[in-house]
Amino acid sequence: MQVAIVVYPGFTALDVVGPYEVLGRLPDADVVFVAEQPGSVGNDLMSLSLDVTAGLADVPHPDVVLIGGGPGQADQMSDGPLHAWLREVDRTSSWTVSVCTGSLILAAAGLLGGRRATTHWLAMEELPRLGVAPVNERVVFDGHYATAAGVSAGIDLALTLAGLLADDVTAQMVQLIIEYAPRPPYDAGSVATAPAAVIDRAINRLAAPSPASGT
Amino acid sequence: MQVAIVVYPGFTALDVVGPYEVLGRLPDADVVFVAEQPGSVGNDLMSLSLDVTAGLADVPHPDVVLIGGGPGQADQMSDGPLHAWLREVDRTSSWTVSVCTGSLILAAAGLLGGRRATTHWLAMEELPRLGVAPVNERVVFDGHYATAAGVSAGIDLALTLAGLLADDVTAQMVQLIIEYAPRPPYDAGSVATAPAAVIDRAINRLAAPSPASGT
Repeated sequence: MQVAIVVYPGFTALDVVGPYEVLGRLPDADVVFVAEQPGSVGNDLMSLSLDVTAGLADVPHPDVVLIGGGPGQADQMSDGPLHAWLREVDRTSSWTVSVCTGSLILAAAGLLGGRRATTHWLAMEELPRLGVAPVNERVVFDGHYATAAGVSAGIDLALTLAGLLADDVTAQMVQLIIEYAPRPPYDAGSVATAPAAVIDRAINRLAAPSPASGT
Repeated sequence: MQVAIVVYPGFTALDVVGPYEVLGRLPDADVVFVAEQPGSVGNDLMSLSLDVTAGLADVPHPDVVLIGGGPGQADQMSDGPLHAWLREVDRTSSWTVSVCTGSLILAAAGLLGGRRATTHWLAMEELPRLGVAPVNERVVFDGHYATAAGVSAGIDLALTLAGLLADDVTAQMVQLIIEYAPRPPYDAGSVATAPAAVIDRAINRLAAPSPASGT
């Protein structure tokens, strides 16, 4: 089972590495990072680079396609080789999935029309503009599409997907291997629970010029 | 504030990328990945490589030092340049921290003697052999050392540390930016809650030859 994880300049590292750490541990998983421009692909914070060897043409028929978000998403919204590849691989993929603002790229490529989907909380209003029904849930499944909320939500999506791709015991095995029994020291991980001052700070921070943002 | 994140061949990606995504978003953070052999450093699953530009000598005085775990940890237990560097930077660091079996490397370098610490659940018995008091908690602070349990526990450690390095509102802002309101679809992330069959599968999997394991 081949899992293709798409990255591009300005991607958010945890968006892709969270799901990678889960899906990469499924017994028959062959995970490949893929980029339109292979080589060293730098992230949003400009202090992490992935060494990507596969280009789009090298991965014509992945079983699972995953694309993450990040400030660099804004540069991936125009039609071109990435969108064409996404449309093509989606025709044969078992699952086409996104984390954070990766769903905006899938939508811009024409894949989520009329579907229910989610994205980073601060980008939710972009989904209806792209013809997608926004859903305020952490992980949303619709057809063979699955979308996760911001950044860390990709781990929850991947564990759910692992149960579907393999079975519950295998998914739980992966959860135990990565010791995913989260205990956040604060309860500010969603706008439903974060104090107003924290929400304001986050909005201001994400509106600041890169590298500093994180949607 | 400089944060040095140490990687080595066979590291587990989420061990370092989880905390990176938190600490890298602190307003004055300058994060640098460092390796004894800079260049492309491959992970445990052999499908992800970080492009690391800094060698040990390039980072003489980090404020925070973080080392993760992974099957490659076993090759980092002998005294040598990494241990010497860890001992040296620890003299001036504000915090020296580990995720997963990274604590075994800190201990082997002589930094955790007599301290309380944690590690991946399957490696816990290694700590007393190295003169360290094992603590079955997700994040353990002792002096200027902080250690996290397996893989994903590094996110919880980093958020706690963010509150100490900056302040609670800043740490909560980061939590909201990465939308860290975890909702695992299973409750198998610790040996305290995982079914016996799941624990057996994980132990067998982690005992298998790489690439497949994950401590």
